[in-house]
Amino acid sequence: MRDEEERAERSVNRARQSSRPTGGSEFDFINLIRQQALKHQRKKTSSLIAHPSSLIHGIGDDAAVFEQRRGLDTVITTDLLVEEVDFRLRTTLPALLGHKALAVSLSDIAAMGARPRWALLSVGVPALIWQSNFLDEFYRGFFTLARRFRVSLIGGDVSRTPERVVIDSIVLGETLHGRAVLRATARPGDHIFVTGSLGGSYLGLKLLEGRKKPGRSLHGDVEPLMARLIKRHRRPEPRVLWGSVLGEERLASAMIDISDGLSSDLSHLCRESGVGARLDAARIPVDKTALRLSKFLPLDPLAAALHGGEDFELLFTVRPRNLARLPRRINGVAATYIGDVTGEPEKIVIREGARFRPLPRGGFEHFA
Amino acid sequence: MRDEEERAERSVNRARQSSRPTGGSEFDFINLIRQQALKHQRKKTSSLIAHPSSLIHGIGDDAAVFEQRRGLDTVITTDLLVEEVDFRLRTTLPALLGHKALAVSLSDIAAMGARPRWALLSVGVPALIWQSNFLDEFYRGFFTLARRFRVSLIGGDVSRTPERVVIDSIVLGETLHGRAVLRATARPGDHIFVTGSLGGSYLGLKLLEGRKKPGRSLHGDVEPLMARLIKRHRRPEPRVLWGSVLGEERLASAMIDISDGLSSDLSHLCRESGVGARLDAARIPVDKTALRLSKFLPLDPLAAALHGGEDFELLFTVRPRNLARLPRRINGVAATYIGDVTGEPEKIVIREGARFRPLPRGGFEHFA
Repeated sequence: MRDEEERAERSVNRARQSSRPTGGSEFDFINLIRQQALKHQRKKTSSLIAHPSSLIHGIGDDAAVFEQRRGLDTVITTDLLVEEVDFRLRTTLPALLGHKALAVSLSDIAAMGARPRWALLSVGVPALIWQSNFLDEFYRGFFTLARRFRVSLIGGDVSRTPERVVIDSIVLGETLHGRAVLRATARPGDHIFVTGSLGGSYLGLKLLEGRKKPGRSLHGDVEPLMARLIKRHRRPEPRVLWGSVLGEERLASAMIDISDGLSSDLSHLCRESGVGARLDAARIPVDKTALRLSKFLPLDPLAAALHGGEDFELLFTVRPRNLARLPRRINGVAATYIGDVTGEPEKIVIREGARFRPLPRGGFEHFA
Repeated sequence: MRDEEERAERSVNRARQSSRPTGGSEFDFINLIRQQALKHQRKKTSSLIAHPSSLIHGIGDDAAVFEQRRGLDTVITTDLLVEEVDFRLRTTLPALLGHKALAVSLSDIAAMGARPRWALLSVGVPALIWQSNFLDEFYRGFFTLARRFRVSLIGGDVSRTPERVVIDSIVLGETLHGRAVLRATARPGDHIFVTGSLGGSYLGLKLLEGRKKPGRSLHGDVEPLMARLIKRHRRPEPRVLWGSVLGEERLASAMIDISDGLSSDLSHLCRESGVGARLDAARIPVDKTALRLSKFLPLDPLAAALHGGEDFELLFTVRPRNLARLPRRINGVAATYIGDVTGEPEKIVIREGARFRPLPRGGFEHFA
């Protein structure tokens, strides 16, 4: 065992000294944390994929170090994912869990208008999972997403657990000084936008849980539509580019990511800003797959779009003078105007046809 | 429930706007995370005790933000603590667990020669624990230690878990640029030092687990001695001031904290630096309480000092030219010269009387 461990650590040292920034080093990283947990050592793991500009030290030390640069702010978020509460192993592929653990934190960084740079990952797994290829697949999903956005894993911890998998995902990002976009800075008259589409993730979860069963005679298109919604839930796409553009170009006056659901998250933003909102139901970008599927299954796509969680889209406000500068799409993802900020604190209404009704926060129970 | 939650969040907003940096705000923080987890919302909690100099935004947003300053480096570490693996609730007071969760991460920051600044805390607890006063006590222990070292809690996450308590402690520190003290930079001829004393935590754990039972006729001093060792284990004291002085004054050429045990951690440092070490058993600062107790109980204090873990002392090396500048004590805690760095890679020997013997890494099994 000790020989194996030393071999793994030597190979990690080699990787650190090598000039290849990725590839083999990720493999070595996984080996290292495997060996560490086998021995249940508490010594830390650290990065192999460095941004050469400012990561000073990663692997094999008590902590990771990066250089501070004048004119920048650091943004940091942490997300705890617990088996049987935030995910179920029997319905979640390990690689998708690795993707999701990073995606939820990237979404938080995007919602601050920041650019993600570094990640740390604390992982606890029970012995049986440890002996499987779970962690290899988990890290594969994590690193695939990390590479896309040039995020470096610079540290982490690993532990055994008695029964459940637990993951804490930590992501650090950067903004120009003072450009972080808060929730508290929307003003009456601002326009409200949302990226992408809403409701798909919630309906995908319901399909995954088997709550929405198709009837007997199904149209041939139904299965692929269902698969698409399930994927939407399992593989959330954080709006990283939108977030950094909205922050860097000073386009968003306030922002939050949609993790609890549009009604809840808009309510958070309004409360923090001391404002209200008036939405237009006809403008909500309801998931198109859900709309098509609702012809065959008893779904309510608009209710899912208003109250379903985990879409990980960005909800943001724009001052009227900045509207002309707002991109319509970034990398194929649109931002849709859905309503306006009003001066009545925390009063949120939605127009359906000719009438306005209050939009209850997290009111999903009333609609499902 | 919603009214309660809104009240809690309003009180937190008030705390944020108030000029009092501590006190009531910690209470509000605890209220906030309580309410959050009751609703199982995934929205983030954030700081109330700000370093006014550079924390830009804490509570009530997707992430925390702090300003980067030229000439500084950020140091970050994460420690995952899992119930039944890293601690047991039946032998751990919640306040001491809060203390320990922060202490282990502060120790990592100290071992980098850095000054701790910010903390984030992800906590998962089962419903029964949630309903108890566990979290109040846990955060009380956490904040008491945080205040001592002026560390601000700037964020975190909270989740329910099916059975076990799980804690991920994240601490960020700062050093002057380039002053972080790594493990890899010891050189032959450097002197080896350790802060405080060794072996007490390990023996305290054994006493706690009931493995070292006192015999029938006990000297009256034995009980208080046992209590002191148990406290040493339960309430580790991170060497925060030593760490930042050794880093800022450029006194340590390499450093690591003793979490696995002197033999293991010295071995990590030697391997990273490509050096060996020669220790002198007579110089090891064995815990004095353990020495006194060993007159009554079958303990081996030297073996515990060499191989027992969780003392959270700092092990560091000093170039000969810097020896004169090294403080003997900081805040009453001594640093003791225990041996020298040698040029034989990874060969670690210890002198006992006239003879040298190899010091096996983590060789506790052979001694206990």
